[in-house]
Amino acid sequence: MTEIDAPPHPFDAAIALTPVADGRMRSRTRPEYANMVGPFGGITAAALVQAVQRHPDRLGDPISLTVNYAAPIADGDFDITARAVRTNRTNQHWLLELTQDGVVTTTATAVFGVHRDTWSDTELDMPRVPSPDAVPLRGFPDFIAWARNYEMRFVEGAVPDQDAGEHPDSTTTLWVRDAPARPLDFPALTALCDVFYPGCSCGAAGTWRPAPSPSPCTSTPTPRRSRPKATTTSWAPRAPTASHAATSTRPPRCGAATAPSWRPPTNWSTSRTDPPARTTSRTLRRAKEP
Amino acid sequence: MTEIDAPPHPFDAAIALTPVADGRMRSRTRPEYANMVGPFGGITAAALVQAVQRHPDRLGDPISLTVNYAAPIADGDFDITARAVRTNRTNQHWLLELTQDGVVTTTATAVFGVHRDTWSDTELDMPRVPSPDAVPLRGFPDFIAWARNYEMRFVEGAVPDQDAGEHPDSTTTLWVRDAPARPLDFPALTALCDVFYPGCSCGAAGTWRPAPSPSPCTSTPTPRRSRPKATTTSWAPRAPTASHAATSTRPPRCGAATAPSWRPPTNWSTSRTDPPARTTSRTLRRAKEP
Repeated sequence: MTEIDAPPHPFDAAIALTPVADGRMRSRTRPEYANMVGPFGGITAAALVQAVQRHPDRLGDPISLTVNYAAPIADGDFDITARAVRTNRTNQHWLLELTQDGVVTTTATAVFGVHRDTWSDTELDMPRVPSPDAVPLRGFPDFIAWARNYEMRFVEGAVPDQDAGEHPDSTTTLWVRDAPARPLDFPALTALCDVFYPGCSCGAAGTWRPAPSPSPCTSTPTPRRSRPKATTTSWAPRAPTASHAATSTRPPRCGAATAPSWRPPTNWSTSRTDPPARTTSRTLRRAKEP
Repeated sequence: MTEIDAPPHPFDAAIALTPVADGRMRSRTRPEYANMVGPFGGITAAALVQAVQRHPDRLGDPISLTVNYAAPIADGDFDITARAVRTNRTNQHWLLELTQDGVVTTTATAVFGVHRDTWSDTELDMPRVPSPDAVPLRGFPDFIAWARNYEMRFVEGAVPDQDAGEHPDSTTTLWVRDAPARPLDFPALTALCDVFYPGCSCGAAGTWRPAPSPSPCTSTPTPRRSRPKATTTSWAPRAPTASHAATSTRPPRCGAATAPSWRPPTNWSTSRTDPPARTTSRTLRRAKEP
């Protein structure tokens, strides 16, 4: 008999980590998740979560994540250092740094914790949206490589055309899942939180440019624990209850809502700031009068 | 002539920092800002912002702040270490640690930046609320020492009475300012972001307990640059346009809105997680059926 090794899902290849010296973990950027400048922020955030999940000291599951994209990541190897600065009985606080050649490009803090059987509430309702099969497939412009790894069906706020006028509302609501399909674990969920395109792109003139403004993203998802491998496949019309719908209102309310079927509530936040000097010349400079 | 030295505002005393060895800055908890367990989280966050503002390497103003309250802070001295891990042309990324006797109690990341003359937008409107003088003064229970330093006028979502029933909506909207009055600078604004009481307190049964759940707080304020000293005094009926109104919807939308007169938009976020072992016995344990 001959064993056939199927290649890993591109997502798993992109967040694969190898231990190196001094507690660092090494990974490598992948062309499948390239953005216009460096890799897709979501895949970087996912690798940071993965670095904690693979750490021998890790306690529980992700509760909160904040990522600061301090500089572009160049194509090639990068190292992640994850340090548990405080471990309590039920939660744990991490500081993370992503470096290339010893220079910091990304920092993060993460809180992990053990879910307890206590009072909880998800106040936010799932958006009232048509089922996925009733929403047309529509992605990002083809030169955004990472977006080809996601199946997107925009209910509102799709990427505007070049000739679209100014839009007063930056809300985006869409159905989204990995393509090809993949179980929705914490790293995958982390990456999904960053699929929303920059708010300024639709707020200003329909032009598609790197994000020059802070783009906080907060949502409250947790993969269903009872069927961890079912969530990405449950998107079919016959099982719409475990949805992957997410709604995003970018600054100041980006990604405020996700499907209430994801509970208990946890908090994920991503904060992105101005690109550094070498990309600022491409940012949006058109003034807008109040 | 005799010079009279007026005592500093309690807030300034509480965020005062003294350089000590190894780049650390030392401060001390103050009884005026005590909470039920350790100090008011807002005053801790404010001290962290102050530590960066006083740092000789600091570039620009605060853009984003994430604070992780990893453990209670005991009464007494504490040290803050602020490290600029990346300085770009217009922004700068900081890692902060607050320690007591060398043990980490609080971590934070902060982004500072130079405001540029570029496109900006504040999509969120200020809540429609009565003027401050039309809203009755109502604070927190008197045993919350720190809250006595704020004048609060709740439009909705005031601290519930002990016998209040369960409330389906955790929105809080209030007018708030320092008492006694003080200019609204970045540390003061940081502290204001944390005045909202724990969401579970009104969601569950009107009981008042330490926050057991993640309590993200995001808002988008910037003190008006044209009259930096006017913002706290402009709260008088004759100058209601530069308001201090803030609305908060706790998890997952805590503190989503502030007055649109604060621009350009910047992002502030605070994430608070379970208190550690020695306080968990006091957390809310009543189960709620969906």
